[in-house]
Amino acid sequence: MRNVVVTDPPRADLTTATALGEHGVATVHEAQGRTGYLGPAFRPAWPGARTGGTAVTALCWPGDNLMIHVAVEQCREGDVLVVATNSPSTDGLFGELFATALAQRGVRGVVLGSGVRDVAELHEMRFPAWSTAVSAQGSVKATPGAVNVPVVLGGQLISPGDVVVADDDGVVRVERERAAAVLTASRARAEKEEANRARFRAGELGLDVYGMREKLAALGVEYVPHAELPEGRA
Amino acid sequence: MRNVVVTDPPRADLTTATALGEHGVATVHEAQGRTGYLGPAFRPAWPGARTGGTAVTALCWPGDNLMIHVAVEQCREGDVLVVATNSPSTDGLFGELFATALAQRGVRGVVLGSGVRDVAELHEMRFPAWSTAVSAQGSVKATPGAVNVPVVLGGQLISPGDVVVADDDGVVRVERERAAAVLTASRARAEKEEANRARFRAGELGLDVYGMREKLAALGVEYVPHAELPEGRA
Amino acid sequence: MRNVVVTDPPRADLTTATALGEHGVATVHEAQGRTGYLGPAFRPAWPGARTGGTAVTALCWPGDNLMIHVAVEQCREGDVLVVATNSPSTDGLFGELFATALAQRGVRGVVLGSGVRDVAELHEMRFPAWSTAVSAQGSVKATPGAVNVPVVLGGQLISPGDVVVADDDGVVRVERERAAAVLTASRARAEKEEANRARFRAGELGLDVYGMREKLAALGVEYVPHAELPEGRA
Amino acid sequence: MRNVVVTDPPRADLTTATALGEHGVATVHEAQGRTGYLGPAFRPAWPGARTGGTAVTALCWPGDNLMIHVAVEQCREGDVLVVATNSPSTDGLFGELFATALAQRGVRGVVLGSGVRDVAELHEMRFPAWSTAVSAQGSVKATPGAVNVPVVLGGQLISPGDVVVADDDGVVRVERERAAAVLTASRARAEKEEANRARFRAGELGLDVYGMREKLAALGVEYVPHAELPEGRA
Amino acid sequence: MRNVVVTDPPRADLTTATALGEHGVATVHEAQGRTGYLGPAFRPAWPGARTGGTAVTALCWPGDNLMIHVAVEQCREGDVLVVATNSPSTDGLFGELFATALAQRGVRGVVLGSGVRDVAELHEMRFPAWSTAVSAQGSVKATPGAVNVPVVLGGQLISPGDVVVADDDGVVRVERERAAAVLTASRARAEKEEANRARFRAGELGLDVYGMREKLAALGVEYVPHAELPEGRA
Amino acid sequence: MRNVVVTDPPRADLTTATALGEHGVATVHEAQGRTGYLGPAFRPAWPGARTGGTAVTALCWPGDNLMIHVAVEQCREGDVLVVATNSPSTDGLFGELFATALAQRGVRGVVLGSGVRDVAELHEMRFPAWSTAVSAQGSVKATPGAVNVPVVLGGQLISPGDVVVADDDGVVRVERERAAAVLTASRARAEKEEANRARFRAGELGLDVYGMREKLAALGVEYVPHAELPEGRA
Repeated sequence: MRNVVVTDPPRADLTTATALGEHGVATVHEAQGRTGYLGPAFRPAWPGARTGGTAVTALCWPGDNLMIHVAVEQCREGDVLVVATNSPSTDGLFGELFATALAQRGVRGVVLGSGVRDVAELHEMRFPAWSTAVSAQGSVKATPGAVNVPVVLGGQLISPGDVVVADDDGVVRVERERAAAVLTASRARAEKEEANRARFRAGELGLDVYGMREKLAALGVEYVPHAELPEGRA
Repeated sequence: MRNVVVTDPPRADLTTATALGEHGVATVHEAQGRTGYLGPAFRPAWPGARTGGTAVTALCWPGDNLMIHVAVEQCREGDVLVVATNSPSTDGLFGELFATALAQRGVRGVVLGSGVRDVAELHEMRFPAWSTAVSAQGSVKATPGAVNVPVVLGGQLISPGDVVVADDDGVVRVERERAAAVLTASRARAEKEEANRARFRAGELGLDVYGMREKLAALGVEYVPHAELPEGRA
Repeated sequence: MRNVVVTDPPRADLTTATALGEHGVATVHEAQGRTGYLGPAFRPAWPGARTGGTAVTALCWPGDNLMIHVAVEQCREGDVLVVATNSPSTDGLFGELFATALAQRGVRGVVLGSGVRDVAELHEMRFPAWSTAVSAQGSVKATPGAVNVPVVLGGQLISPGDVVVADDDGVVRVERERAAAVLTASRARAEKEEANRARFRAGELGLDVYGMREKLAALGVEYVPHAELPEGRA
Repeated sequence: MRNVVVTDPPRADLTTATALGEHGVATVHEAQGRTGYLGPAFRPAWPGARTGGTAVTALCWPGDNLMIHVAVEQCREGDVLVVATNSPSTDGLFGELFATALAQRGVRGVVLGSGVRDVAELHEMRFPAWSTAVSAQGSVKATPGAVNVPVVLGGQLISPGDVVVADDDGVVRVERERAAAVLTASRARAEKEEANRARFRAGELGLDVYGMREKLAALGVEYVPHAELPEGRA
Repeated sequence: MRNVVVTDPPRADLTTATALGEHGVATVHEAQGRTGYLGPAFRPAWPGARTGGTAVTALCWPGDNLMIHVAVEQCREGDVLVVATNSPSTDGLFGELFATALAQRGVRGVVLGSGVRDVAELHEMRFPAWSTAVSAQGSVKATPGAVNVPVVLGGQLISPGDVVVADDDGVVRVERERAAAVLTASRARAEKEEANRARFRAGELGLDVYGMREKLAALGVEYVPHAELPEGRA
Repeated sequence: MRNVVVTDPPRADLTTATALGEHGVATVHEAQGRTGYLGPAFRPAWPGARTGGTAVTALCWPGDNLMIHVAVEQCREGDVLVVATNSPSTDGLFGELFATALAQRGVRGVVLGSGVRDVAELHEMRFPAWSTAVSAQGSVKATPGAVNVPVVLGGQLISPGDVVVADDDGVVRVERERAAAVLTASRARAEKEEANRARFRAGELGLDVYGMREKLAALGVEYVPHAELPEGRA
């Protein structure tokens, strides 16, 4: 691990990041071809949290939050802080004092592949946080790491300046270069879903809305009335 | 896996299913002899969700929700949709559009052995959902499966038409043929618990309410005042 | 396992335990040198639960809550019931009837290394409970265990009379003999944090507040503007 | 749970069970339409273990092996003992003394949804055992259960008399009524695989052996030489 | 965490520790009343490893093996090194060079609540090691900890000088003060098991050897021939 | 996910890859600054497996091995096949027939972030395989994916042509561009370790070999003879 702090990485357009945040995780994930989702292990510290912003990344040693202190200085309005550790850890690297410092800088949230603490205070402050654990376990400040290098979290490569969108469904990453295209695709998907929603409310079936009946027959799916089943195990 | 859709399976009586839903998971589980519980991995998508209804089952390939589309058509008023995958998966097979379609048909909830998404929207709609994961990961519609065959979820065999009861404690299954008897037993248990609750509020002890003191003595449980313990490790 | 019920163990001072509860888990854990935390597996049954009290311990066979009945009688005002099983189990050993009995005695909460049930009712009663699972799975009353012996939960040894503090961040144990000293240290830490919080709100950086810049240089952390990075992988 | 011991259940033909055991888990699982596999949590206690026989089932309380003692008496030549607990447990319900008793009766192995112990001795005896844990944790004999009722293990319903096949890949169940048909299908599959194996050894590709090239094109899979990729992220 | 190295703790008698090691984990665990077992998460790095010795303990920060270096100096002939981290970690804190240094001092093995590496080399050297993970992830030497303080591993309190017994079934701890008594009980148990083994080999049943038939009847266990079962679900 | 097969990616020098394989995972991981390790979840299908080669990557839908068939054609002498799924899965995507085809082409092994099957046959063939599960669960060939795009496995980005080294300690990735430098560093480390090994065999201590005594003092580590400890809890 090279111990480097990269300053002023290019960031995705903030208006785009904000708009992606409004579309939410499921829509953005679908709009970019079912990629970029960090998986079910990342949960919000409090229900209803929701954000979209540009990534500042920190890579820490497990049980050590030294590089988060360094990363705070690299954050600016509209950023989301993204913290990885270089081996599995649940320790609570982030809490209310960090949130206070970040909120003061206009940072929109934090995503950690380890633990958060001060959950009640984060909720009260309404500072959005996603993590793979809640843990009060405190950390040291002994071992160096890196800031604003690409990190892997939840199986996704996140580069500084990428867009991070998060809500009750978890976290999704949009590559900086693709942000505008993914926003366009998200809008198209949202419109299509709105049209389908209206049809479902009117009682139509997905089998018809999506035209699946022929495919089912081609796949050999048979319909059998229960009364015609043979006795015994189905 | 045989690719079959069984239509019109017999269902448990809906009034009975509704009444079991009101008793809740813990009472019904106890009333049927501590059986039928799907275990701690099944959690509600939002707190306070609560339901009781008759099972329509779907068996899907992991990462593929084709058979949920098929199952929707088989659902009717009072049903609970029960979705299994034939190998472990956390993918988000179910979301708000499905919930819209099901709600329109009077379906009371969904139970999945994989993931749900659109958690914020499900909460807002107050559509009850239980699952083993929250995940935005989208699915394909490529591989056939089955609808209304018996499935295993959380170690329990669930047949179409069985009663499914779910609340903040998880999910329990009542076999269709036993639904009336389990409702009778649930009422008896609830009455007995109400009587015991009054005694506990009045300061009585379980040791006396349940008559356990003799049993403890027979099992060799000794009482020792702390002051009489030898020094060192207890 | 010796089948013994130890009566009247010495307890930490209750005023001290109450005050520690007000400081909360993260502060108390730090104040005692980052020790005593039961880890991220212990979660509150409902959000916002918070308590501090003196431990009464029960050691049960998995799937068997006999010794909880015995422990209730040993509990008094200000206690927190702490339940361990002697092998891993998720069964729901504790529910609303126990909570009713304990609340009547002035008990402040329960911590279990297994499951709770009746979560909706516990929430409604506002009876605080922490556990490693939510499970409706019922238990038998067949096998003896012990009450008020030291138990290990979440990697921490908890002796009867120790202070237990719990909130949304989990559970921490303070040894009885150290309770007063840890309270003093907690107060000092809270004051220091309040001062730091004010500085962060005013826009100061942790790097300066904690004087880390020299250390970073000594550890070899370099700052590199993004524009000066070589092409390709960072 | 009804406390019943069912005696003399009908069993699948033993010659058929033996032959299925020789085909092994992967082949039998495929031959019955990719069903019946107990999943990756079931591992052999020692490498190279391999068996096929007829199921005798036991349903135990967690941490309690009383019903295994009862089940031994119901076992006969060619059986495989199948043990479930009615809630999750890792305790070591089975060890070398049970293996000695079962081996004496001609029993071919054991499958447990909990723990085994005496692993070194089982290996030395070459008594085949599959389980979800290795654990020395001892058990009590206090709570009744059932023998030769259908049980669910690894998401599969296993009825007494079903065929159980197990090897280094885990465990698969074949329903008694289908055993002969699955053996026929297993033989057909093994022959087909032998033919394909010869073609692969000769350097043919699966794309050609299985005729997949047109399907790939229809699915939109493109081939792009690396030299023609645009710079930057693929 | 106090940063202390305790030198020359009293140790259990080495001859006793050696004899307990020969009895093995399951026997010793039973002989001391089914206590002291570290659970199924602790696995040998290579099959067939087996040891018994006296504990030297080290408490490390996750991802940091500084205190193992310190602990080596405190080890002497007949010891088993026991390593805990103060929060969950899988990092490979121990490998072949440590094993070389320990073997030179007559140390009999190592037990870690984290990871080992150089598994092939440890096997070749036949240096016994038990851990909760295999991991090549390297560690730093930055944060202090403690040596020869009591540690908790696998839910068991281990004090320096306690006996540690380990084999293919995992790891068990015997308190120093009880070592002689547990050895006596282990011998008694081994003799009794040898007698029972002979009876099982002769075809006797546990139901008769342990006299369980009356108990089963008292518990309400019924025997029902399969032919008399009602149709349908058992 | 774009459905693309990239042909003829540049590969690391094969002699270098072979030499890195001989150094083994722990040494290579350390030599490249403690990076690139895929973590403890990746285990060999059989003990003693060991390899080093150049990566060909495949990205599959869970439960679907279509793209492995495509990837085989892209493999050549000295390659290691690396398979990711785009959401968590344990299904057995790879078995003996694939191994036969790959061995014929001179491929040195396979690494999967899901399951392998035919473990006994892979062992017999001595075809090296690492995976996060052993599972007989069969797969479909229905959904397209990609070959020779960068994939993330175990938190590491693996590009086609990178070096993959694997043994009993797991799997490590070396970036193609750094392979030669990492080999040089691996040799240096191996030499240094050999020198240290000799000193440890001669009875020297790590505290002296690595010069740690001053650091320990600076960190405040105290030595206290056991006899001088106060009574009670350490």
